[in-house]
Amino acid sequence: MSVSYTGIKRALLGTPFPTHNEIHERLDKTRGLAIFASDPISSNAYATEAIMSVLILLGSGALAMTLPIAMGIMTLVLLVIFSYIQTILHYPDGGGAYTVAKDNLGTYPSLFAAAALLLDYILTVSVSVSAGVRAITSAFPGTYDYRVLMAITAVFILTWINLRGVRESGTIFALPTYAFVGGVLLVVGMGLVRFTGLFGVPALVPQVHNVAGIQPVSQFLFIWLVLRAFAAGCTALTGIEAISNGVQAFKPPESKNAAKTMVAMGVIAMSLFVGITFLATHLNILPSESESVLSQMTRSVAGGGVIYYWVQFFTMMILILAANTGYQDFPRLSSFLAKDGFMPRWMTHRGDRLVYSYGIVVLAFLASLLILVFQADEIAMLPLYALGVMLSFTLSQSGMVLLMGKIGKLKPGESFFTGVTTIHFEKGWPWKRLLNAVGAVTTAVVLVVLIVTKFTEGAWVIVLAVPFLVVFFRSINRHYANVAESLSTRDLELADVTRPVANVLIVPVADIHRGTLYALQFAKTFSDDVRVISVVTSDQERERLVRRWNRFPEITKDLNLICIDYEYRDILTPLVEYIERVNSTEFPNEVVTVVIPEFVAESIGSQFLHNQTANFLRFRLRGHKDVAVIDVPYQIS
Amino acid sequence: MSVSYTGIKRALLGTPFPTHNEIHERLDKTRGLAIFASDPISSNAYATEAIMSVLILLGSGALAMTLPIAMGIMTLVLLVIFSYIQTILHYPDGGGAYTVAKDNLGTYPSLFAAAALLLDYILTVSVSVSAGVRAITSAFPGTYDYRVLMAITAVFILTWINLRGVRESGTIFALPTYAFVGGVLLVVGMGLVRFTGLFGVPALVPQVHNVAGIQPVSQFLFIWLVLRAFAAGCTALTGIEAISNGVQAFKPPESKNAAKTMVAMGVIAMSLFVGITFLATHLNILPSESESVLSQMTRSVAGGGVIYYWVQFFTMMILILAANTGYQDFPRLSSFLAKDGFMPRWMTHRGDRLVYSYGIVVLAFLASLLILVFQADEIAMLPLYALGVMLSFTLSQSGMVLLMGKIGKLKPGESFFTGVTTIHFEKGWPWKRLLNAVGAVTTAVVLVVLIVTKFTEGAWVIVLAVPFLVVFFRSINRHYANVAESLSTRDLELADVTRPVANVLIVPVADIHRGTLYALQFAKTFSDDVRVISVVTSDQERERLVRRWNRFPEITKDLNLICIDYEYRDILTPLVEYIERVNSTEFPNEVVTVVIPEFVAESIGSQFLHNQTANFLRFRLRGHKDVAVIDVPYQIS
Repeated sequence: MSVSYTGIKRALLGTPFPTHNEIHERLDKTRGLAIFASDPISSNAYATEAIMSVLILLGSGALAMTLPIAMGIMTLVLLVIFSYIQTILHYPDGGGAYTVAKDNLGTYPSLFAAAALLLDYILTVSVSVSAGVRAITSAFPGTYDYRVLMAITAVFILTWINLRGVRESGTIFALPTYAFVGGVLLVVGMGLVRFTGLFGVPALVPQVHNVAGIQPVSQFLFIWLVLRAFAAGCTALTGIEAISNGVQAFKPPESKNAAKTMVAMGVIAMSLFVGITFLATHLNILPSESESVLSQMTRSVAGGGVIYYWVQFFTMMILILAANTGYQDFPRLSSFLAKDGFMPRWMTHRGDRLVYSYGIVVLAFLASLLILVFQADEIAMLPLYALGVMLSFTLSQSGMVLLMGKIGKLKPGESFFTGVTTIHFEKGWPWKRLLNAVGAVTTAVVLVVLIVTKFTEGAWVIVLAVPFLVVFFRSINRHYANVAESLSTRDLELADVTRPVANVLIVPVADIHRGTLYALQFAKTFSDDVRVISVVTSDQERERLVRRWNRFPEITKDLNLICIDYEYRDILTPLVEYIERVNSTEFPNEVVTVVIPEFVAESIGSQFLHNQTANFLRFRLRGHKDVAVIDVPYQIS
Repeated sequence: MSVSYTGIKRALLGTPFPTHNEIHERLDKTRGLAIFASDPISSNAYATEAIMSVLILLGSGALAMTLPIAMGIMTLVLLVIFSYIQTILHYPDGGGAYTVAKDNLGTYPSLFAAAALLLDYILTVSVSVSAGVRAITSAFPGTYDYRVLMAITAVFILTWINLRGVRESGTIFALPTYAFVGGVLLVVGMGLVRFTGLFGVPALVPQVHNVAGIQPVSQFLFIWLVLRAFAAGCTALTGIEAISNGVQAFKPPESKNAAKTMVAMGVIAMSLFVGITFLATHLNILPSESESVLSQMTRSVAGGGVIYYWVQFFTMMILILAANTGYQDFPRLSSFLAKDGFMPRWMTHRGDRLVYSYGIVVLAFLASLLILVFQADEIAMLPLYALGVMLSFTLSQSGMVLLMGKIGKLKPGESFFTGVTTIHFEKGWPWKRLLNAVGAVTTAVVLVVLIVTKFTEGAWVIVLAVPFLVVFFRSINRHYANVAESLSTRDLELADVTRPVANVLIVPVADIHRGTLYALQFAKTFSDDVRVISVVTSDQERERLVRRWNRFPEITKDLNLICIDYEYRDILTPLVEYIERVNSTEFPNEVVTVVIPEFVAESIGSQFLHNQTANFLRFRLRGHKDVAVIDVPYQIS
């Protein structure tokens, strides 16, 4: 069975990689960009529209503010990217907001950052997959009833791809990411060229609407709506921190490659964002329920031909693939937490293909659960999304402010080990500190706006869930500390771990058959005080047992048969009581050994046809300090 | 933990009953009637209407045929009841169709009967509960979205009540059954009195419709519709076999009490059926979507007052409680099958409260699954229902025909043991044989009509599922036969079960800590060849392990430490390979013993935080014939 299990596993996941292969599984910059950037780049499919949808509440004249707001967001993105490049260079082992906060702000802030990010990564998967599935159900309305099934199937496929390993998934994901970027850049370029009327191409004509300027509203409402528009556009920021967690996924020199990839990601994502926003506002495009702004813009610039369908198709693809960044980030951040003892330790284990298999599976499970609960409705999930990322930005940048402060205290040539990383004197720390501080304050404001504007729509779930997770992390940590202390060999007195083993073996049996006879002869070789106990409920049962016992004197002659009369059906209780009594009265402070004869069926399915008494007994005996259990299996052929 | 588990169990289910208490848990006739008759009696809520709904297709004039058809069904019911009384008297240990078919027709027919009945019992639960829930969602449409939740909650409550034991559930169920019977009998009585105009009460006036007679249709269609009406009315037959399975649930004399209860049930159910049908047709009531026939009739006879609401309320109650007959029948029939080795043996075990707990839980699970799949829509489930019962009637009555034939061959005073029961000479066997034969043919015809008329609506599921279940029963039976042969001590050569135990103990460890030190000193007392194996993936790991090993010479000095270098993360493979190699090369044909040090956390939840390596290793070693496993638990306090 073991063989066929291995066979199936290899067919599905490929042959295992040896541990030293890890370096070959690393990402080059091209694949790294595709893997880590699909989330922030895919935001361009809707970020401009998100701003316009809020501004339109003030009248179509207010849409003129879209570009300034987009420029503001771009500035914020550049600040955040700048901050994260600092993070990557100063924390080359990766870890992003969690590590920075842990090293500079303390345990609790780091746990808040981690909790917020983990929730966001789960949502990345469920929101992106649901959005991708909506593209299909919009095209084929008959498939609407199967949306949950389709979304969970997509999660399943993503899980499978990721379990096969990083590099392979990098290859699979490169095409759609670059195809989307290329398509949109082409459209933006064509638009700019046609707009200027250069090269004699037919000039683009902006749409004409019969609209007035901006509706008269109170100053408070005006500022509020502009803030909301800004916050809505900040969806473009989600996912830009991913690289900082994944520095170690890059080929060496890891931090340089990661930093360069981050710069490339920022340039690409912001070119698309500003390009789309510029064109969309200058073409007077209005946000509409029935067609996305990107689609309207592409149609105006490039007509309805090949380019249009190219952009539409790869928009859908990159939205689904954006889910993949969750698969990169969640398992890696979980492994950081697990290494520090805040998540189950087994989340640090890498599977046969050198990926954090458990993290991938846990993520897939939680994301599927969300999809089920929200019935694959990503609109309903959106108010929960992007809060986590803003909280982590704020904490990460605050941490960098403090780190730059520490660097400022160094003299030229000095260096200092923080406990996690070594920092050296560097010039320009005051500027870096200032930029991080501005970034931290801005993302904090955006966070507050997001919480306040979306609280009743679902943001309260996250506001409750983050501290809950932090408490959960702490309790796991306390458990591990407790275990470490219990197992520690410091100041160990040998008497603590040595306990005499009683010269007695207790063998519970239900009947005398080949399996129990086999266990009895096994027990005889280890002890000359073997007690065979059996629970009987009637005289006939006892007589039958004794009769069968006497048929095999060669085995049974030196053994004691003890029948326990019992009036109830729960036969484990008298067995456990007998073992406890022997332990406490005859052999106090010694280890008593119980031999459990167990027969093993051909398959797991047929094992299920048999009583689970042996398993239940083993489970009940686990709680007993001085009881060891010997399983003597007898194979059914 | 064991204590609190027991505490919770007692609070929920009550204190355990000793086995000899079984006799006190038996049912008297009053409770027996309530428990076993709620299903057939509740059929009166819709049986008349089911006939009328088919006949109305021929025009309202055709409704005049309702009473003759009902009389025909009543005759059939009387035949079936007569047959089952014979069954009860000849098979006092119970078992109904399954036992009768096994004893007279052979194994396969008995398995078909059992499969059909088990499916029907599951459907009894899901259909009845869903119908009861519909009564609530009709009254409060806002609750419609929660129908599945409500239905599953109802299943949960029924499961709980039944796990507490037979007599208690009998007490709980007596009230609604008798309240329904009393209410309907009162209405029927009032109706008859008012109809005759006796005692000077105001006479009832039949409704007047402007309808013609019977629509002209082809002779074939006419016969077909009459047959369908007859088959539809046969829903009144479901559940009347229940008592025959449950003879042993009655106080002694079991078969006499069961037979008397069966007679009482037949008299009550048929009085209601004929009474309702007579009144409904003579009042010219038409079947309607919006109001049931029973409701219309009650309203006409008794007005809209207390009596009306009484009947309506207890109609709902008895429909929900009809589900309970499934809880009586499924676990008991399963236990019969399990005793004969056609279902998992553990289904014969009775729990703390002397009920077949496993059967109850399995039934609850399957019924909930059906409710989920069909979204608590009992109309969609109906085409699957009642087929099973007809098949079992046919087989049971055919069996009785053969049994009566055997009795006919006896001379006065002779008796004969069939293998299951003892039959004596009796007069009147030819008549009994004839009545059973007529019953068998009639139910066979009804079965064919049901299958043909409902095949595409869902009956095909049952037509496929029954033979599938029979194959499943056979394969379980083959497995048990195989196991019995493997364990049999007949012609046992002692060499078959004795195998030398190698003087070696293999202890896999990951680290040297208190838990492993404890296991090592345990191992030392049993063998002087203790081999401690550890998988290491790097030189540092090996050095650290050796360093810690050397710190405890008192324990480790006579032991061998073996480090296995390994390049992959799946450390179980090299461990299992080492054990296999030792077993096959050093100690061929001897039993090798592995000691697994395992630490036990305070709770199951925290156990989950630790690697499951010990469990996985134990699982992989199970398949090895010559490996015994010693678990040495170390408690974390």
